[in-house]
Amino acid sequence: MTKAVYYEGNQRLRSGDAPAMEPLPGEVRIAVSYAGICGTDLHIYHGHMDHRVSFPHIMGHELSGVVDMVGPNCGSIKEGDRVTVMPLQPCDNCPACDAGHRHICHKLKFMGIETPGAFQKYWTVPVETIVPLPDNLSLKHGALIEPLAVACHDVRRGKVAKGDYVVILGGGPIGTLIALVAKASGAEVLVSEINPHRLELLENMGLNVINPLERDVVAYVEEATGGAGCDVVFEVTSSTAGAELMTRLPRTRGRIVVVGIFNKPVPVDLHKFFWRELEMSGARVYEREDFSAAVELAASGKLPLDTIISTVYPLDQLAEGFRQMESGSSVMKILIECQ
Amino acid sequence: MTKAVYYEGNQRLRSGDAPAMEPLPGEVRIAVSYAGICGTDLHIYHGHMDHRVSFPHIMGHELSGVVDMVGPNCGSIKEGDRVTVMPLQPCDNCPACDAGHRHICHKLKFMGIETPGAFQKYWTVPVETIVPLPDNLSLKHGALIEPLAVACHDVRRGKVAKGDYVVILGGGPIGTLIALVAKASGAEVLVSEINPHRLELLENMGLNVINPLERDVVAYVEEATGGAGCDVVFEVTSSTAGAELMTRLPRTRGRIVVVGIFNKPVPVDLHKFFWRELEMSGARVYEREDFSAAVELAASGKLPLDTIISTVYPLDQLAEGFRQMESGSSVMKILIECQ
Ligand SMILES: [Zn+2]
Ligand SMILES: [Zn+2]
Ligand SMILES: [Zn+2]
Ligand SMILES: [Zn+2]
Repeated sequence: MTKAVYYEGNQRLRSGDAPAMEPLPGEVRIAVSYAGICGTDLHIYHGHMDHRVSFPHIMGHELSGVVDMVGPNCGSIKEGDRVTVMPLQPCDNCPACDAGHRHICHKLKFMGIETPGAFQKYWTVPVETIVPLPDNLSLKHGALIEPLAVACHDVRRGKVAKGDYVVILGGGPIGTLIALVAKASGAEVLVSEINPHRLELLENMGLNVINPLERDVVAYVEEATGGAGCDVVFEVTSSTAGAELMTRLPRTRGRIVVVGIFNKPVPVDLHKFFWRELEMSGARVYEREDFSAAVELAASGKLPLDTIISTVYPLDQLAEGFRQMESGSSVMKILIECQ
Repeated sequence: MTKAVYYEGNQRLRSGDAPAMEPLPGEVRIAVSYAGICGTDLHIYHGHMDHRVSFPHIMGHELSGVVDMVGPNCGSIKEGDRVTVMPLQPCDNCPACDAGHRHICHKLKFMGIETPGAFQKYWTVPVETIVPLPDNLSLKHGALIEPLAVACHDVRRGKVAKGDYVVILGGGPIGTLIALVAKASGAEVLVSEINPHRLELLENMGLNVINPLERDVVAYVEEATGGAGCDVVFEVTSSTAGAELMTRLPRTRGRIVVVGIFNKPVPVDLHKFFWRELEMSGARVYEREDFSAAVELAASGKLPLDTIISTVYPLDQLAEGFRQMESGSSVMKILIECQ
């Protein structure tokens, strides 16, 4: 037997035994080193996604680990390989898959939601989801690759180019990673955030920040861009205020990327789209190339990844990690040590 | 003296004398043949744009005509040339102009709004706004080039490609022209419209139509596209219903073009942008290449332009034209004969 943490509905977590599975053909068993807590896990924890999970459910999809056992037909992958996982299982038989948009498949299974996830000692996954980690990337940093791939995808969707002026609305974990990736792409970056703890943390990472409750973001960006407006806005707040602000910042033909997950329609000033010929695109999860970009960027040592990691808890204290994430204090990313 | 129709505020129009102006250097005087009534003229007529016009104001910006007199420094243009006008005067000294987006200049003057327009016998304009008409294009059809250039711009912004499934929400003059241009580009086209007169007119032009009050447009498009959704949606209704429908139709990474002029923020389902990675862009007026495309397309004889022209009134009956446009009956485009 091995260990796992089970979600049993309505904020109930139970640490318990799990069967030690042998990998089937095309499967790889990973000894999970670290698994990060994501906002999605919080949503599951609060019962918002009960319709998508099977009980008892194992959450978690941001991990690093070492290959522990390899099933038949797994190519060159071998025991001892250091890896992470791209946790998507597309159907390969729907209009989205047919169009080459497998990452947003109409029947996408997201591992850790529709299937068991990484908050366990051993996680068995399809070999095609494996992403190798380079030797010079620590296993702690390896657990950040998945959210970093989200940020790489978002920045790619925003077509951020060197010299662009980029505004990120919302300085949580994803907003922060977007800011860091955009900055690494040569953009000038401004993060709008209201939480004073986060503002301090962002500044400590060398990011330019603004508190929209204290300063007029539109006036600030206009001045900073010679009256033009910014090149790209990332909406990562999922708030009415963010949806209101996002259309007032871009230059003519400027771009907006919708990263935040809105749970209901919100007022949007479509006249601004007409008037300045704005462009907006949604961004969801990632594609293979975003994982490659994330691994390369993380391994380059250019990002302050240690500052992103707030705390590391052992597996049986996952509930503690959830509590800290919701404390509203200076938390960015919490890792769970699973061995 | 010559003739013009003056807008004097609050639906008051007066036919009267106008001074015969000699063209200054860089100016061309056009004997206006036909000038179309645009929705924008209706807005002016109802006083909604009084803050942008100077009284008494001459409206009109969709015209054909014959060059009557040429000022100094006007290059090769000569008396007798058949022409239309691209009625934009950018400042050439703002962030939008600097970025090459002169058509949406921050200080754009739109001729017929900020400056006198075409509802007069002779219209004097800057030579750089002149667009020559080919011999095989009638002057009546020539007066449709400006709205056709709008449609060409919209279709270009929507990146419509051969074989695309395209839905146009709103079958007024611009929606109809967008449908015709998209169809001429090889797209499969569906127009959603509620006015029964317009539906009949659209069908008579060979366009595929749907009445959203009678049928479920989303289900129709899903079925027509094998469950994928459409490639491009043009929102031309400026309505809450249109803004609600526009996000429910596109396929993964499908495109929405905001053509309608919304006078206030409306609820938009941003979750759909995230979920299907939708793309949306605003489209406003046109660029030179859109006029070239419009002239070429009109001259090709492929479009049912005669069907677009509902009625022709003489200049002193402009008010009649406005009344007919507002009658809600089977009106598409009304031309004013200005000589
Ligand atoms: Zn996540
Ligand atoms: Zn699929
Ligand atoms: Zn017009
Ligand atoms: Zn300008």
